[in-house]
Amino acid sequence: MGDKIAVLGAGSWGTAFSIVLADAGNDVSIWARREEVAASINERHENVDYLSGIELPRRITSTHDPEQALAGADIVVLAVPSQSLRDNLPTFLPYVEQDAVLVSLMKGVELGTLKRMSEVIAEVGDVGASRIAVVSGPNLAREIARREPAASVVACADEAVATQLQKRVHSPAFRPYTSVDVLGCEFGGAYKNVVALCVGMAVGLGFGDNTTASLITRGLAETARLAMNQGANPLTLMGLAGLGDLVATCSSPLSRNRTFGEKLGHGMTVEEIYASTRQVAEGAKSCSSLRALAAATGVDAPIVDAVDEVVQGRLTTAQLMEAFINRDTKAELS
Amino acid sequence: MGDKIAVLGAGSWGTAFSIVLADAGNDVSIWARREEVAASINERHENVDYLSGIELPRRITSTHDPEQALAGADIVVLAVPSQSLRDNLPTFLPYVEQDAVLVSLMKGVELGTLKRMSEVIAEVGDVGASRIAVVSGPNLAREIARREPAASVVACADEAVATQLQKRVHSPAFRPYTSVDVLGCEFGGAYKNVVALCVGMAVGLGFGDNTTASLITRGLAETARLAMNQGANPLTLMGLAGLGDLVATCSSPLSRNRTFGEKLGHGMTVEEIYASTRQVAEGAKSCSSLRALAAATGVDAPIVDAVDEVVQGRLTTAQLMEAFINRDTKAELS
Repeated sequence: MGDKIAVLGAGSWGTAFSIVLADAGNDVSIWARREEVAASINERHENVDYLSGIELPRRITSTHDPEQALAGADIVVLAVPSQSLRDNLPTFLPYVEQDAVLVSLMKGVELGTLKRMSEVIAEVGDVGASRIAVVSGPNLAREIARREPAASVVACADEAVATQLQKRVHSPAFRPYTSVDVLGCEFGGAYKNVVALCVGMAVGLGFGDNTTASLITRGLAETARLAMNQGANPLTLMGLAGLGDLVATCSSPLSRNRTFGEKLGHGMTVEEIYASTRQVAEGAKSCSSLRALAAATGVDAPIVDAVDEVVQGRLTTAQLMEAFINRDTKAELS
Repeated sequence: MGDKIAVLGAGSWGTAFSIVLADAGNDVSIWARREEVAASINERHENVDYLSGIELPRRITSTHDPEQALAGADIVVLAVPSQSLRDNLPTFLPYVEQDAVLVSLMKGVELGTLKRMSEVIAEVGDVGASRIAVVSGPNLAREIARREPAASVVACADEAVATQLQKRVHSPAFRPYTSVDVLGCEFGGAYKNVVALCVGMAVGLGFGDNTTASLITRGLAETARLAMNQGANPLTLMGLAGLGDLVATCSSPLSRNRTFGEKLGHGMTVEEIYASTRQVAEGAKSCSSLRALAAATGVDAPIVDAVDEVVQGRLTTAQLMEAFINRDTKAELS
C-alpha cells in the first residue's frame, strides 16, 4: 500500500478520522461537497462548519473535485450521510484506483432497500468483499479530534486486509482492533443511533441513570437479536463496535442522536429540530429501515418500533416511556 | 407468604429498597446498627445519615434489635457491607423464621475466603439454595428512593421462589424480572464496582466518553470471562444485573465507587478518601478478592489487577491508564 488516503465527506467524523490518518503517517485528501469547506481546510487548517476550533495537521488537504481527492489513493474512506451514499457513489467511482480498499465510516441502513452501507458499496461499485471494510467503535468525533485515547474495530471479510488497514490507521491515540464481522459492526453502528435517540428522549423527559441504563441494556439485546438473525457474531455486539459505541453515544452530550432525542423529549417536533441544525441525526432515518428489516424477518424490536412512531409523529415521547414502563413483568431471558 | 419483610442494614440501598417494599404493600422493619439511625427513621421518617431528604412511608419502621426486626418476617433482606456479613449473621440467624427466604442486596466477594454473599449465607446459616435469593440491577439508590422507574433482576435457584419474590417486590416504579442465575447476578454486581472505580479514575484524570465506554466494554468482557468460568449464564452478564448495573454505576455521579475512583484520579490516597467519607466503596475491597479468584482459576483480568494495584498504592492512576493505552493491538476477539 501507498501512503495517500482519500476521505470522501467533510463532516465532523470524516474530518476527525482524517486527523487519525494524518497522525498515523498518511497524506489525506478530503473531498468536501461544498467548496467553502474545502477552502477553510486548505487555507485555515480548520473545518469551521463541522469541527471548529481544531487545528488540522498539514498533511490534510481538501478539494471539491472527486478526481483530485482520489488520485493515487489506495484507501478510500467513505464518510457521507448514509442516505446519500447511493447518489454520491457514481461521482466517485470513476476515479477510485483499481484495487483500492473502500472503508465505510457510515452508520445507517438505507431506506427502501434496507441495505447496509457495505451492501450499497458492493452493489453500486461492483466491488468484492475483500475490498470493503468498516471502522466502528466508541469514537465521538470531537474527542478523537482532541487526540483523547480511543479504541475501535477495523472489520473486513478478508482478515489480511483488515490487518493491513489496522496498521494504516493506528495512531498514538487511536487503537484499532481487527475483525472479520463487517455485518455485526454495521448493525451495531446503525442500531446505536436509534437507541441513543430513545435514551435522549428519556433524558429530555427528566428520567435518570437507572432508566437510561435499562434502555441501553434492552437496546443492546434488541440489536443483537436482529444482527444475529442476519448472521452477525454475538461477540461483536458485546464489543467496541456494539456495546462500546452504544455506551459512548448514549452517554455523551456531544452525540447528535442523543441530542436529537432530548429535543424530542423537551417537546420539539422533528421538523423544528431539522430547522434548527445542519447536522444529520442518522437514527431518525435508520429507525424506519431497521424497523422494516425487523418486521420482514420476524424479529421483536420494541425500541426501533417506538422510536419510529415518535419520529413519524404518531406517538409522544411521554407515551413511549409510559408504554415501556407498563410492559408485563416476566423472566429476564424469556 | 405473609406481608412483613425485615431489612437488615440501614444504608442507602437498604433504605431505598425498603421504600420499594413498602410501595409494593409490605410492612418493613429495618434493623439499623446504630440506634440513632433507627430513631431517625421512626421519629422523622427519614434516614438522615444515608438517604437524607427522602420521606419514608409509614409502613417502614426501624429498630436496633435483631429479634424485633425479624419477628414474623417471611422475607429477610440482607443489606450490610459485604465484608461484615459473616460477622453479622450470627446475631441475626437465631431470630430468622423457619423457611424465611434470605435475599441479598450485597455486591461483593469476601476477602480471604473469596466467597460470594450467597455462599457466605449458605455456609454460615446452613440454608439451602431454594431459600437464598439476590436482587441486582441498574438501581442507584437515590433514584429508586425518588420512585424513578427502574428494572431489576430477582434471582433464586428455585424459579418458583423467584416468582413469589417478584410479586412481593413489584411496586409501581420498580419492575423485577426473574432469573435462576444467582451466581451470574452476584459476579455482575461485585465486578461492576471495580470497573466503576476504574472508570472514575479515568474521569478524574480528565479522559472523555470514548475512554470510559471502552473501559466499560472491556470491563464487561472481563466480568463475563470470570463469571462464565465459575458457571454463570453469559446472557445474565448482558442483562440488567450485568451490563445494566455496570452502565448505571459507571455513568452516575451518584455512584460511590465511581466517585471513589475519581478521587484517586485527582491524586487522593485511599487513606485520605476513607477519612473523608462514611460510605463504603465495595469495589476497593472486592478488587482484591476478585483478583485472587481470577488468579486461582487462570482467568485474565487486567482491570481488577490494575485497580487492586492502585488501591494497594503500588501504581498511580496515570500509570494504570498509560498501561491500558499502550497494550499491543490485536484482533478484538482474540
